[in-house]
Amino acid sequence: MKRYEQVAQALRRRLEHGFYQPGDRLPSIRDLCTEFAVSVSTVQTAYAELEAAGWVAARPKSGYFALARNRPGTLPAVSRPAQQPLEVSQWDQVLALVNEAQEQGCLLLGGGSPDTTADTLKALRRGLSRLYQRPSSEQDNYDSLLGSPLLRRQLARLAGASGTVLHEDDIVITSGCQEALSIAIRTLTRPGDVVAVDSPSFYGSMQTLKACGLKALELPTDPQTGISLEALELALEQWPIKAIQVTPTHNNPLGYTMPDARKRALVALAQRFDVAIVEDDVYGDLAYTAPRPRTIKSWDDDGRVLLCSGFSKTLIPSLRLGWIAPGRHRDQALHMKYVSTGATATVPQLAVAEFVEQGYYERHLRQVVRTYQRNLDRILGWIHALLPADCAVSRPQGGFVLWIELKGLDCVRLNERLRLRGVQVAPGVLFSASGKYRDCLRINITRADAELYAGLERMADEIVAMRGEQQASE
Amino acid sequence: MKRYEQVAQALRRRLEHGFYQPGDRLPSIRDLCTEFAVSVSTVQTAYAELEAAGWVAARPKSGYFALARNRPGTLPAVSRPAQQPLEVSQWDQVLALVNEAQEQGCLLLGGGSPDTTADTLKALRRGLSRLYQRPSSEQDNYDSLLGSPLLRRQLARLAGASGTVLHEDDIVITSGCQEALSIAIRTLTRPGDVVAVDSPSFYGSMQTLKACGLKALELPTDPQTGISLEALELALEQWPIKAIQVTPTHNNPLGYTMPDARKRALVALAQRFDVAIVEDDVYGDLAYTAPRPRTIKSWDDDGRVLLCSGFSKTLIPSLRLGWIAPGRHRDQALHMKYVSTGATATVPQLAVAEFVEQGYYERHLRQVVRTYQRNLDRILGWIHALLPADCAVSRPQGGFVLWIELKGLDCVRLNERLRLRGVQVAPGVLFSASGKYRDCLRINITRADAELYAGLERMADEIVAMRGEQQASE
Repeated sequence: MKRYEQVAQALRRRLEHGFYQPGDRLPSIRDLCTEFAVSVSTVQTAYAELEAAGWVAARPKSGYFALARNRPGTLPAVSRPAQQPLEVSQWDQVLALVNEAQEQGCLLLGGGSPDTTADTLKALRRGLSRLYQRPSSEQDNYDSLLGSPLLRRQLARLAGASGTVLHEDDIVITSGCQEALSIAIRTLTRPGDVVAVDSPSFYGSMQTLKACGLKALELPTDPQTGISLEALELALEQWPIKAIQVTPTHNNPLGYTMPDARKRALVALAQRFDVAIVEDDVYGDLAYTAPRPRTIKSWDDDGRVLLCSGFSKTLIPSLRLGWIAPGRHRDQALHMKYVSTGATATVPQLAVAEFVEQGYYERHLRQVVRTYQRNLDRILGWIHALLPADCAVSRPQGGFVLWIELKGLDCVRLNERLRLRGVQVAPGVLFSASGKYRDCLRINITRADAELYAGLERMADEIVAMRGEQQASE
Repeated sequence: MKRYEQVAQALRRRLEHGFYQPGDRLPSIRDLCTEFAVSVSTVQTAYAELEAAGWVAARPKSGYFALARNRPGTLPAVSRPAQQPLEVSQWDQVLALVNEAQEQGCLLLGGGSPDTTADTLKALRRGLSRLYQRPSSEQDNYDSLLGSPLLRRQLARLAGASGTVLHEDDIVITSGCQEALSIAIRTLTRPGDVVAVDSPSFYGSMQTLKACGLKALELPTDPQTGISLEALELALEQWPIKAIQVTPTHNNPLGYTMPDARKRALVALAQRFDVAIVEDDVYGDLAYTAPRPRTIKSWDDDGRVLLCSGFSKTLIPSLRLGWIAPGRHRDQALHMKYVSTGATATVPQLAVAEFVEQGYYERHLRQVVRTYQRNLDRILGWIHALLPADCAVSRPQGGFVLWIELKGLDCVRLNERLRLRGVQVAPGVLFSASGKYRDCLRINITRADAELYAGLERMADEIVAMRGEQQASE
């Protein structure tokens, strides 16, 4: 493929996947020269080709703009889960996924770990190393139950970026965001209760419902705007729902961010039916465009939102550092925190507090978000080139996971076949209470290298083979 | 006081507190010369004084032996809690205690932190510092759910010392022993269930019962042999008990170790009534005499004992490193672990695994146990000298906590008065479901310095003042 064709193809993929919406101005010729390390004439030829194909239009003295095209939608369908409370299953699948974390020699595309190779983490490692070296009885002994005031102060400050007004004493530090979610659910419910969830939904919170003897009411969810408020309203009228659990910002697995108006409307709905909201914001800081979106919590004026977050998706997961702002449920959440693990480990808190205070956190975010965006762009291109044309792909607005819908294909089976070839993905069934989304899968886009490309190639092979077998048996 | 008097006094205190039982051979003159750094004649004079006072007898060519003396018992009474299942209260008191952990300028005698000043911890700090410095994707990402195989292997090996046969895959690493206890209880029970407990009992596990909506059935407990098996048997006949929760080795707060025969009998009883045992062994490795006692788990032949332990009492509490061997309940315990906090922080596991493997752990244990024993000896002497003669004191066989019974004195009130004078203790009410042991308190003996002495002096003052006020009002 010639250089201009490569540039044209890359731009076409971005257009196909909605990176540039109709009317958007495209990058300048100069910017593309830098990005692709090619000459001005190469970019001009690429743009001429796209113009000829009807993808873009030139406007004098303004540059190139995206045109509307009649392409089939490439977004996954709006989910239509069975609208009744269900017990959560799929634990075996989740266990297999989390236990593979350390498997050697397997390309782990299913995991939820961020990129930890960035140089911008060095200051954090230095801090951890320095603090652990020094003996200090204050640092060695059990920390206070709320967690280090140094870290809570920084978190309260950072919360401003999402429009969330928090005082340091509104925050309880936890061992990872999973503990925050678990505390929130245990604080709000008793066995047998019903919790409404967006769907697909993070398997960690789904399994928490299972462990607490709760039922999940999975609600239709739009891959661009999130949980259906209309369906939620009907559900609130029909079922005795104790809490609404959502990941409204850079959703896992779909990548969407609920528009502000819908976030605000969700709070209003919760107020009307007097029900609590558990907001998982663990991917919230990984916005592809600044400023990061607001939290639901930022519209919460009566303390009914329990905001859960942490540093496992932004810094180093194995630090196990999270937090919860439990609103009016603070006393009970603190009791739950005490019995869950007692105080949280001290040194990681101190090291992260320092890292944030010195501005390293925000610098690191900028760095990794650039990487994830670049990876997303590449991987979308690869998916377009390798996977069947009828596959649908999510359009993440932040974070580092991608959701792929493979119309009618059994992705549990696909994952089994891929594992024999050294590749692992997260089958969609993990993200449902009752094994829905069987023809979907989630991949991690923290890398976009030759190995990942090879993994997608193998995936494409298996899809073709499985479809062939399916047709032969019909 | 002359040197020989000091030696005599030290020996007398040990005799008074039962360190040497009637008939026991006392240390040789040579040993005492080394211990007290005094001459042979000084020790001889001390022994002569003790002989004259009827404490010891000399036997030709054998040395000195302890004599029986008619002294009032100084042990706390066998507890007689109300024998019916109760909801757990006292959270406010527990919260006050754990939140004081970081309070500045207060002598914290109530806490449960070990001595972390020993040089023998240096290798651990070095290891932590070194591991955190190096970037490694394996180390940064979520660990497997069971925890690091390196650490589990070392734990399985160490378990041999307590007669416990464990394979590395029988063990799940947790964020501190509190998470292990919490997982055990959640695995075994549903809200409304009854759990039988020794009494007094560790407030962390009591509060776990509260958080899970369970009832505690507190059973009479002997300060030297532990939970009454007779009372337990009656209770098992009478109530639908789901689990028995005990700390049978170097009990917190009483310091006793259940004799082997009683541990074995407890397993037999649990088998007969088909009920599970939650064994808290977090102080188990801190035996004053080698070898350390066996666990109840070591007699468990059908996987009904959930053994919970960790490194918060032996190494550094703020590492938050514990583990559970859940026996036949492994699958459910693993699910509970997943929803509780997901994987455990990786680097502390690797650093402790290295520390144990290289023999530093056992060396450190020997070092701190010597310190605790020496402190106990000193503090018993100070208590004898300073506190009222009618106070009763526990006889710990390991660990670093001491239980003091102050006949009829309100120790919640005492603690409040002491706090105004910069001293904090753990009131006995913390250790009961319903605020019993109000005339008891627990102190930490990891230090035995001038400051602690001054704290005991202040305690003595307040006791005298409170008793005076009591008499005046009668």
